[in-house]
Amino acid sequence: MSANTQFDLQQFLATRTQTVNRALDKFLPGDKTRPATIHKAMRYSLFAGGKRMRPALCLAAAAACGGREADAMPLACAVECIHTYSLIHDDLPAMDNDDFRRGKPTNHKVFGEGIAVLAGDALLTQAFEIAAQAKGWPRYPHRDLILEIAKAAGSLQLVAGQVADLEGEGKKLSVAELRYIHERKTSALLCCSVRLGGMSANCTVAQLKALTDFGYHVGLAFQVIDDILDVTQTSEQLGKTAGKDVAVQKATYPAIVGLEKSRKIAAQLTAKAFAALKTFKDRAVALEALAEYLLKRDK
Amino acid sequence: MSANTQFDLQQFLATRTQTVNRALDKFLPGDKTRPATIHKAMRYSLFAGGKRMRPALCLAAAAACGGREADAMPLACAVECIHTYSLIHDDLPAMDNDDFRRGKPTNHKVFGEGIAVLAGDALLTQAFEIAAQAKGWPRYPHRDLILEIAKAAGSLQLVAGQVADLEGEGKKLSVAELRYIHERKTSALLCCSVRLGGMSANCTVAQLKALTDFGYHVGLAFQVIDDILDVTQTSEQLGKTAGKDVAVQKATYPAIVGLEKSRKIAAQLTAKAFAALKTFKDRAVALEALAEYLLKRDK
Repeated sequence: MSANTQFDLQQFLATRTQTVNRALDKFLPGDKTRPATIHKAMRYSLFAGGKRMRPALCLAAAAACGGREADAMPLACAVECIHTYSLIHDDLPAMDNDDFRRGKPTNHKVFGEGIAVLAGDALLTQAFEIAAQAKGWPRYPHRDLILEIAKAAGSLQLVAGQVADLEGEGKKLSVAELRYIHERKTSALLCCSVRLGGMSANCTVAQLKALTDFGYHVGLAFQVIDDILDVTQTSEQLGKTAGKDVAVQKATYPAIVGLEKSRKIAAQLTAKAFAALKTFKDRAVALEALAEYLLKRDK
Repeated sequence: MSANTQFDLQQFLATRTQTVNRALDKFLPGDKTRPATIHKAMRYSLFAGGKRMRPALCLAAAAACGGREADAMPLACAVECIHTYSLIHDDLPAMDNDDFRRGKPTNHKVFGEGIAVLAGDALLTQAFEIAAQAKGWPRYPHRDLILEIAKAAGSLQLVAGQVADLEGEGKKLSVAELRYIHERKTSALLCCSVRLGGMSANCTVAQLKALTDFGYHVGLAFQVIDDILDVTQTSEQLGKTAGKDVAVQKATYPAIVGLEKSRKIAAQLTAKAFAALKTFKDRAVALEALAEYLLKRDK
């Protein structure tokens, strides 16, 4: 991983956050567009200081395949809209009932439950409107780009993860059941992000397979670390309510296999992610740096 | 409208409801597919006895343009998924707070609020997955089909209507404001349904314009009649809570302009809808019959 010593990840993240934010701002109706409430609510959560990790992964995957960032941008923005919608709905009283997200009151605390449901609905819909504006290739036509997002966000993946998570609360889950949840709640959309980046670069079938392996393992590692941080960090450090998982007796890796084993699992998953990047050689420098960041992060 | 005297609408609706239901059943994961809860919840509302009016309009529009029903079917199913999702979310306690829909307990009454939110999310996502599987034409590629649905369902149309409806409760609205709501809550998706039917048949630009006019006016008429039926019919006749609009002081055409004027408006809108169909001659027989049915319906 010597390439990473020369790669400035903070610079990469800062500049990409800016370009992604600019692109999202252009794709979304302005917050004075009628009905103003819904556009204010959509933008409140979309511009609440998210780390833009999924767009960054999408853009980095495009770069790894020799693509242009401009071609990946609509897909990067679409994935961020899906991610934001899922957070708004997950935070609802009928779901995780969270009052804070990224250090700010959650959408329904500011706009009320009805508007929060609709803001999520609108962002989910907006994601497809944005994705449809991406460039298609003969190998990856719009049909495939839309299917990629719809499958990752649908009832067998992202929604399935949230359902299993809801139904698992207060129950003793096995590691396999917990993995089922994490694969769907987190891996599915991270995997989709890097695959879409590859597709925007008209990548080869072998490259797409490597990106799939990478995204899957980074996604799982990301979630295991989220579990770990919930028990090891304070609310101030996280910018959201810490210890929440323990409070609601949510099954987590630390709760099932302990903290040390959880850290080992996260490290193993990341090693598998790194292995998947070998085929890209030096062009995967941003993807590698992002994976390291996801494993080393403290919030 | 002499053609309609020979057209058997009941037969048309019965057979199309069957073929649409069969297609939806094939597109959706089975109700034992893990997680079973979400697929049961999606199917509960999708197969709750809806009249399949939007799919019927989509298929009839395809026929009016000389297209094949099989080509229109995925789009007809996609639109029905959007419609069902919007009903599930509209019925939530944070929105219209309805306990019954089509004579059955609403989704959240059966599955709980969390699952109802997710079932709506999943059906909205499923709509795009199904639409992506439609046949594209050079004139109407997948990009345009997806944009058509996303715009009709998004924050400027369907969601905008629901927001304006929520915000208008208990307020005195002008006819213009009420029309703004109806255009978005109902016309947008009906218009989208007939346009998609035309697009699936590779229709001409003139035909698409005629279908747009037709869908817009039928949609508005449909909603004015919904308002009228709410004050003139009983809950048993409607299969849902009657008098609800009055109870929550919702602005309706009868409340603003009176019952007789409302009936006249509905008739005028339908006349404009019929006028738009002239260009299709005899091939619009099903669309004409559907428009008459929407105006003459008593529930």
